[in-house]
Parts: sequence; C-alpha cells; structure tokens
Amino acid sequence: MDRTGILFVISAPSGAGKTTLCKAVLDKVEGLQFSTSYTTRRPRKGEIEGKDYFFVDEARFKADVAEGAFIEWAEVHGNLYGTSQQQLHRLTSEGVDILLDIDPQGAMNLQKQSEDAVYIYILPPSFDILKKRLLMRGADSPEVVEKRLQKAGDEIRCYHRYQYLIVNEDFEVALENLESIIRAERVKMREKYRAWVEERFIHLL
Amino acid sequence: MDRTGILFVISAPSGAGKTTLCKAVLDKVEGLQFSTSYTTRRPRKGEIEGKDYFFVDEARFKADVAEGAFIEWAEVHGNLYGTSQQQLHRLTSEGVDILLDIDPQGAMNLQKQSEDAVYIYILPPSFDILKKRLLMRGADSPEVVEKRLQKAGDEIRCYHRYQYLIVNEDFEVALENLESIIRAERVKMREKYRAWVEERFIHLL
Repeated sequence: MDRTGILFVISAPSGAGKTTLCKAVLDKVEGLQFSTSYTTRRPRKGEIEGKDYFFVDEARFKADVAEGAFIEWAEVHGNLYGTSQQQLHRLTSEGVDILLDIDPQGAMNLQKQSEDAVYIYILPPSFDILKKRLLMRGADSPEVVEKRLQKAGDEIRCYHRYQYLIVNEDFEVALENLESIIRAERVKMREKYRAWVEERFIHLL
Repeated sequence: MDRTGILFVISAPSGAGKTTLCKAVLDKVEGLQFSTSYTTRRPRKGEIEGKDYFFVDEARFKADVAEGAFIEWAEVHGNLYGTSQQQLHRLTSEGVDILLDIDPQGAMNLQKQSEDAVYIYILPPSFDILKKRLLMRGADSPEVVEKRLQKAGDEIRCYHRYQYLIVNEDFEVALENLESIIRAERVKMREKYRAWVEERFIHLL
C-alpha cells in the first residue's frame, strides 16, 4: 500500500512522564522516529545535540523563523522551540512515522495548518502527583518548578483539543495505549488505499 | 472516568478470517464482549445457541422486527440476521465494549442511526486467497461457494465506508491491529472526560 508517514504530536504538562513514554514507544514500535526540535534553551545534563534537540542561539533561530524553516515554533518558559519543515517532510515522504514532542502552544499552531497529524495529550493522574514529580526532578530551582506549575495550568487547559487522552498512572498501561494509538492510526481507512483494494479485487468489483 | 461501552462493528467478505480474529481478540482484550446476533440460518457444525447466534424461525424473527427489537437487521444469502437493541444497551450501559460481527448491509443500516460506533473492515490479502479459503472451508456446496464469491463483491464495495481497514495477511499482525484499534478508541478524547480532568486539576485551571 502507498505509505506516507503519519505525524504524531504529543504534548503534556511538565511532569506527566511524556519524555520517558516517548523513548519507550520509539524502542517498541518499528518505523517510528523522533523529530528533533530546534531550541534556544541550554542543554540539560545528559542531553545530546542532534538527538534530544538541535541547540542553537537566538539569532540563528530567528533567522530560521524569518526563512520559514519551521512548520511550527513557540516560546516556552522564555526559550524558543521549533520544528524543521524540511526534516519532517523528508521522513514522512520516506514512509517513516514521526513522533513530535512539542508544547500545546506549538501543537495548536500546527493544528491550524496540518489537519493530517494525530494529536495525543498525556496527563499525570492527579495534581499532587504532578507537583511531586516536578519537585523530584531536581534539575531546576524551586522558582523554575513554581513557574512550571503555573505553566502546567495553561497547558492543561488545551487538553481537549487533542484527539487522544492518555492518563499516565500505570506506566505500562500508558505505554500500551500510546503504542495502540500508533498502530490503530496506521490502519485507519484512507482514500489512497482505494487503488490497492481495486487492483487486488478487480475480479469481484 | 465515566465509562460507557463502545460498539465495535466488524465486517468482512466470507473467507477473510473475521470469525477467528474476533474470537482471538475477545480472548486477549479485557472488558470486551461479543454481541450475539439473531438469525434464521440453520446452525453450522459446532455452533452453539446463544453463543454463536440465537437461532430463531422466520415467523419469530419477523415479529421481533415488527416490534422494533433489532437495532439493525438484514437479509444475507437468503437468511435473516439481526442485532438486539436491548442486549446492546444493557451491556454498553454497564461499561462493557461490544464486538458486533455483522455483514456490510447491516453495518450500513447501523451507520445511519448510530454515529458513535467504530467500524472496522477486514480484507483477505488477495482475491485468490479469498477464493482458496472459501473452497477449503468445505462446509458448503460449490454452488454456495460461488454465490458467496459473488456476494463478496457486493460486500467489498462498501469497505471504504468503514473507519479502519485490516488486511488479514499475517494473522498475528491482523490481531495486533484489531487489538490496537480497540485500545486506541478507549483513550480517544471524549467530552465526558472534561469533568474528570477538571476535578483533578482544579488547582491549576
């Protein structure tokens, strides 16, 4: 069958476990790749250039914005994040499905122009657990945690504009749900399957 | 979360392997039950009353139709098949998901009135394999096989009105796809989740 890659857009408030879930599903599902975003944020400990993010300075980022290089971009916690149009189109045209981990602001920008993408929102099971996970992370100062918590409110307000809602209470269940969404979307009925069916069942049609 | 059962409607031309797939997915997925149809067809070898079908005579079936007992019914290969409205509503209101194995004619009748259901079409990988499977079945006379093959044409013509298309080439893959559709549909965003989210994240919203 004709196979153009599907774009899976995943968002969550900080502390929902999105990054761990994304890494696990990439290990489990064949033909799925992570889209590496561009950001002006400083690398966190252990983050790898070109894998976790492309780390660029603000001047370079703004020049790329001016050139229309990003299919979506947004400012989050004072840093800029963007998704390369070229990278995305190259992979999907090769039939690779893409996992795009972006914040709701970026996702909403993308929704305006790309109706084909699949939008998935991940929630922690409760506010208390969200807060605990943010405090346990330890990589950021208490002020940053507080700011993130406020930001989480803004982010959660968008959840109903996504097509799927995964509550990350039990990690294995959440992972199975995410995997199922990807496999199910791959067998969704599409107009382009018509040629495939007609060719095979011409004796009956 | 509030949980009303989801109705999964599965159709396929004879010989696509639908019955085996349905049985396997019922074993694998918790909270999923088979909706037993009513039919005027004679039981095949091994079929159990109340499990595979409720076998009734034509007079009884037509009386039920007149009373509006069926949410859908259709005539297939000269026999009548119907789905009990009462059985369906009882199970879904208990939060049970329903697998409904009906022919495309019945499915199209259902589509007119029940937009909430999820429609899944199963295809064999090719016409030759479809023909081979029908001949191998052996339970029916050659005339019946020929009639089924003609009927398969009518049935396949409807495939694009379903939401998902599973090609049953490798049984394990087809089963995984069917299972994924069920799990994915369970985490689809629904308006009724709003109360659940708002209650839990009231500190942020």
